[in-house]
Amino acid sequence: MKKMNTSPVSGMQEFAPEAQAKFDTLKNKIAETYSRHGYLHIETPVIDRAEILLAKAGGDTEKQIYRVFKTAETADSADQALRFDHTVPLARYVVEHESELTFPFKVTQMGRNFRGERAQKGRFREFYQCDVDVVGRGSLPLYYDVDVIVTLLDTFMGFELNTPVIARINNRKILSGLVQEYGLEAQAEEIFSIIDHAEKVPVEKTKEAFEEAGLNNRQIEAMMEFVEIRGSRTEVVDRLKEMGIANDTFVLGVDELDMVLKMMEEGGYEKLVRADMKIVRGLDYYTGTVFEFNLPEYPQVGSVCGGGRYDNLAGFFTEQKFPGVGGSIGLTRLNYVLNEHNLIKNQIGKSIDTAIIPITDNEIPFAMKVAKDLREKGEKTTIVMIDKKLGDKMRYAATIAKKAIVLGENEAQSGRFETKLFE
Amino acid sequence: MKKMNTSPVSGMQEFAPEAQAKFDTLKNKIAETYSRHGYLHIETPVIDRAEILLAKAGGDTEKQIYRVFKTAETADSADQALRFDHTVPLARYVVEHESELTFPFKVTQMGRNFRGERAQKGRFREFYQCDVDVVGRGSLPLYYDVDVIVTLLDTFMGFELNTPVIARINNRKILSGLVQEYGLEAQAEEIFSIIDHAEKVPVEKTKEAFEEAGLNNRQIEAMMEFVEIRGSRTEVVDRLKEMGIANDTFVLGVDELDMVLKMMEEGGYEKLVRADMKIVRGLDYYTGTVFEFNLPEYPQVGSVCGGGRYDNLAGFFTEQKFPGVGGSIGLTRLNYVLNEHNLIKNQIGKSIDTAIIPITDNEIPFAMKVAKDLREKGEKTTIVMIDKKLGDKMRYAATIAKKAIVLGENEAQSGRFETKLFE
Repeated sequence: MKKMNTSPVSGMQEFAPEAQAKFDTLKNKIAETYSRHGYLHIETPVIDRAEILLAKAGGDTEKQIYRVFKTAETADSADQALRFDHTVPLARYVVEHESELTFPFKVTQMGRNFRGERAQKGRFREFYQCDVDVVGRGSLPLYYDVDVIVTLLDTFMGFELNTPVIARINNRKILSGLVQEYGLEAQAEEIFSIIDHAEKVPVEKTKEAFEEAGLNNRQIEAMMEFVEIRGSRTEVVDRLKEMGIANDTFVLGVDELDMVLKMMEEGGYEKLVRADMKIVRGLDYYTGTVFEFNLPEYPQVGSVCGGGRYDNLAGFFTEQKFPGVGGSIGLTRLNYVLNEHNLIKNQIGKSIDTAIIPITDNEIPFAMKVAKDLREKGEKTTIVMIDKKLGDKMRYAATIAKKAIVLGENEAQSGRFETKLFE
Repeated sequence: MKKMNTSPVSGMQEFAPEAQAKFDTLKNKIAETYSRHGYLHIETPVIDRAEILLAKAGGDTEKQIYRVFKTAETADSADQALRFDHTVPLARYVVEHESELTFPFKVTQMGRNFRGERAQKGRFREFYQCDVDVVGRGSLPLYYDVDVIVTLLDTFMGFELNTPVIARINNRKILSGLVQEYGLEAQAEEIFSIIDHAEKVPVEKTKEAFEEAGLNNRQIEAMMEFVEIRGSRTEVVDRLKEMGIANDTFVLGVDELDMVLKMMEEGGYEKLVRADMKIVRGLDYYTGTVFEFNLPEYPQVGSVCGGGRYDNLAGFFTEQKFPGVGGSIGLTRLNYVLNEHNLIKNQIGKSIDTAIIPITDNEIPFAMKVAKDLREKGEKTTIVMIDKKLGDKMRYAATIAKKAIVLGENEAQSGRFETKLFE
């Protein structure tokens, strides 16, 4: 027999049952919170047309995408690929199912996506994303930006982490208005990238980067002032107004940010949000609110959730306008990070409640009846039937379950039995 | 803008939210029942080494498998593929994680698998399989055959179908012993296939098929008698014994079938099972109990669940012996069939409980508080914030939710409000 490599493919995560149970607990909590917030669950196929998936993507994504083909075909016919996020399939879905949907359409997708990135610690090629989106037809009120952020914050609260989580919010109109005001539209992408990286490097590095981008002193001063702006709603809005920028887009962005933060405050989320001008979110399709969740006590972890508002979800597939706002939890990475730093308070124990041990085959019918009763009460119950001594059966039961019930001739005849608690 | 085809790829199923909710209800019931029976959930990657996936497969499977490669690579390097069932990845998993598992290992996998079959009505290229397996190390008592069948029967009972379900059980040792007894080992595969098809064709066709396979009259008579054997445990066991076959494998198979059926009877499943010699299960790795679930009132539907006992799960990856028994519900096909024939009694209605309608922006904070309270009680609650007249908002609410709460100035000030029930 040829010895084969039985490890999972590099970049794929595969858990032992206990680690899987922890992962599943997080996943179920996410699904439950999304559902309680009125997001409808949909699933899109893992395999989609490459033409659809790559309609907008470019650069790294195009290189990282997994193409698929059937062995019976030739690789040249590989015009299908594996989805790399939920946003592109959602855009296709909304166009395809428009007549079956009610808008605004509050929707969640949870599932595996695939990117052939270079494998490294904490990065995975097959990973779960858990998305919420609200898609409007024609228009979509600003309130839904709050709806998405609140849903995601409630989800993190549900995790019962032993470290705080904070939502940092910005608005892309503020950034766009800023570069317009200073006549830097042509360098917008470069400037956004410098701002995006500002918190990962010392202040002087950020200044140098602006210099290298060719900004003059007045421009650099404005940018450096801007990057430092963060804090509570009133602080931030006041400082932004003090910059004296009259650009319409900028002013509208400040207004939107103000309103979003006000709704969050008045809804009871004041302590969980702050405004921060360093939040950009790389993807170019965001056009309004952008946000990122962080664990302030673990800055090295980076963002644990992010999203924002986009004016036009399906612009590549239809001329109809579908504005939206959404956010995503990268569950595979989040689970990795939370376990690495041991951040979940109440870790689950064994997942089976009761192990029933019939002493001989004669007690199997009674064991099946007892199991049925316990299951009807919602208890996870297993029957242990191994060809070993009672002591070994008890050790097996103790490994997998919280409680054991031993059933012998007496118990089967009397219908009475005792339950042994292991912990 | 180029008009793109936004339909899902052929052979992939994609539901509108209401149909998805029905599918999810079935899926959640399966997961819950499996878990209550003590099966531990694991997930294996969708992408695996082609070498592993094809270790045992041949013929159609090899042709139907989806191979994957990253665009940055050449197609020649496509040594990875998408899993086409859960059994091969489970074999790899057990070898890889052996030291982390407790045997017998009761395990469930639920997820999408992929086969590039010719697309046709009710057949899908991307499909959910929901498996339970019990894997032993070295040996595995016969009781676990019962454990698997009972778990699957309880799952079907949980669906609350308005048509009965029956488990038909056989044992491959009976079939093997039969062909040995009649000196037909060389034609075993052909004979099994004729028996497998016997219920789909008229009796004469089966007889003709045996003739064409070169059987003599005595052999044909025995086979024709055998194929007709089905019914209750005692009927079937008596008729098999009357055949007067002394072959050891045959006798052992009859014994095992007798014991499995006896445990099912005594455990309270008598009315849900019958023995049936026409059950073969095509796959060659079964070596003992085999079973199939059918809807007797819908014979055209065929099998809705199946599985069996295999002596050696991981024979291609290790010399260690892992006997197992398992079964699988093909959920994508099952869901399709149940909906096609309208077989689910209690179809779910709207998935959102309450829609809260703030009359103006001023009532948003109060709406968020009311929503929070309702969600803490487990109610699925959404806030409706669209730029339309109250009548339109109510119509939107009626479309998506069971109840509505309208919040105006008075309600926000008094903290009191009324709930309107739509149905």
